[in-house]
Amino acid sequence: MVVLTGGVGGAKLVLGLAAMLPPGDVTAIVNTGDDFHHLGLSISPDIDTLLYTLAGKANREQGWGRDDESWTFMAALAELGGPSWFRLGDGDLALHVVRTAALAAGATLSAVTVDVARRWGITTQVVPMSDDAVATEVLTAAGTLPFQRYFVERRCEPVATGVVFRGAADARPAPGVVAAITAADTRAVVIAPSNPYLSVDPLLAVPGIRAALSAATAPVVAVSPIVDGRAVKGPTAKLMREFGFAVDERTIADHYAGVIDGLLVDARAPAADFGVASAAVDTLMNDLDDKIRVAHAVLALADGLRR
Amino acid sequence: MVVLTGGVGGAKLVLGLAAMLPPGDVTAIVNTGDDFHHLGLSISPDIDTLLYTLAGKANREQGWGRDDESWTFMAALAELGGPSWFRLGDGDLALHVVRTAALAAGATLSAVTVDVARRWGITTQVVPMSDDAVATEVLTAAGTLPFQRYFVERRCEPVATGVVFRGAADARPAPGVVAAITAADTRAVVIAPSNPYLSVDPLLAVPGIRAALSAATAPVVAVSPIVDGRAVKGPTAKLMREFGFAVDERTIADHYAGVIDGLLVDARAPAADFGVASAAVDTLMNDLDDKIRVAHAVLALADGLRR
Repeated sequence: MVVLTGGVGGAKLVLGLAAMLPPGDVTAIVNTGDDFHHLGLSISPDIDTLLYTLAGKANREQGWGRDDESWTFMAALAELGGPSWFRLGDGDLALHVVRTAALAAGATLSAVTVDVARRWGITTQVVPMSDDAVATEVLTAAGTLPFQRYFVERRCEPVATGVVFRGAADARPAPGVVAAITAADTRAVVIAPSNPYLSVDPLLAVPGIRAALSAATAPVVAVSPIVDGRAVKGPTAKLMREFGFAVDERTIADHYAGVIDGLLVDARAPAADFGVASAAVDTLMNDLDDKIRVAHAVLALADGLRR
Repeated sequence: MVVLTGGVGGAKLVLGLAAMLPPGDVTAIVNTGDDFHHLGLSISPDIDTLLYTLAGKANREQGWGRDDESWTFMAALAELGGPSWFRLGDGDLALHVVRTAALAAGATLSAVTVDVARRWGITTQVVPMSDDAVATEVLTAAGTLPFQRYFVERRCEPVATGVVFRGAADARPAPGVVAAITAADTRAVVIAPSNPYLSVDPLLAVPGIRAALSAATAPVVAVSPIVDGRAVKGPTAKLMREFGFAVDERTIADHYAGVIDGLLVDARAPAADFGVASAAVDTLMNDLDDKIRVAHAVLALADGLRR
């Protein structure tokens, strides 16, 4: 199984698939358009969310970052007049510091990620979409905002008119990305219920990934992030409205038209023609059973769609 | 007043002088030979000790680092297989991260230090000996060890045969260093009771500093780090023995011969001819009263020695 994924929502599905399948059978290809430099540190939020989630270290109450976290660094940073808009937990910092040092020493993001995953006993392959820098920027009435400025500092408040992926045209898929998607023994390629515009589109903007999806022998299925006319989390619905689309499953299907063979929608969605095969299940993923239920459903949908 | 100083012991004397004199009347010129890069961070242990001590943030029980500290970063670093020999507290990290980012953006160590001091309400001028990199290395039977490897990782255990200051010959005194030492209104230049070989010699190795001490109109007085035949802290006595010297005040006086006009020794020292003027006082500095007592004594000695 290959999953194209952003952060929190996608990580839940990856966890469900990983729990259902033999160790090592899931490859998560992760958005790095959110990656940025902050205080000299190289931060990869979606990669981190995958790693924390798969290692059982994710902070569930908070919805981001790691568990058993403390905040002494941020308090001391404030005393120094440092920026407070991006919260860095003391434990979380270790990952950023280690990665920054490794990248500075010439390691690739892929290699660093493999090292951390191995250290933490993660058997799922966690692969960045690219080892080259791609920076998602949101075009808004308030100007062009780097992703984290839009998402964290401005809490997605500015009205968006578009999204660009700076550097994407020159980025190469990370080693293993195209091979995983196109491998003859890949059973399905799943687009996670991540934000289509902010989390999945950057992946599709990396030259070679869209072509790999076309060339794949495995069916490509997306899980809709829409539940009951809303997005479970984040600005997906808000962006859909701002871009002039209905907040429904059809908009998701249209967005991925030409890429996907099937769409898994939430059971609450009204019956409709999505232009591709579809199936429905309760897609809310709170506990592990939920995640496994969605994983089963997406796999069943894909298995009925072999190309 | 100008003080040439290393870390903990010197910071105590600087604090005593600062408490005794009007705000802004003390300039601490600080050893940076201990500075090093660790995990991509620029760490300046003696500067930090001065800043924490003068800001009232020093961790007294521990003897280094800052108070109200937590250690989540180190625990997370261990999970990542990172190095554990140098302990970085969560709050302490903020200073290293902010400084590293500022240096990477082109700021000098002097400028960063001024910023932090201002932020923390420190009125004492804290000036690095140089903005250029100088790296103290200890020659030992186990090979040449960078300072922190010798001091922290190896706990000063290898027998030392000498000390070198890599980069010193090309280093320039930081802005203000020579001016502070040679200013007509400087009342005294004090060499703090820091380790002569590891903390003060790097300062004297920066071209221009020794000449400034010769040219100074103010008397130059040293405070002996020896109390009752031992060093209060650190490897001073061990190094004296390894270098073939007696662990006494005379060795200190000889070490600074040609540089100092006077030596303040501990009251427990046997009377002796030090080759320079001297005075004696209880030099152990535990509480603030102790620090002020030593500050008074060193100033009184200096005031009797106007060049």
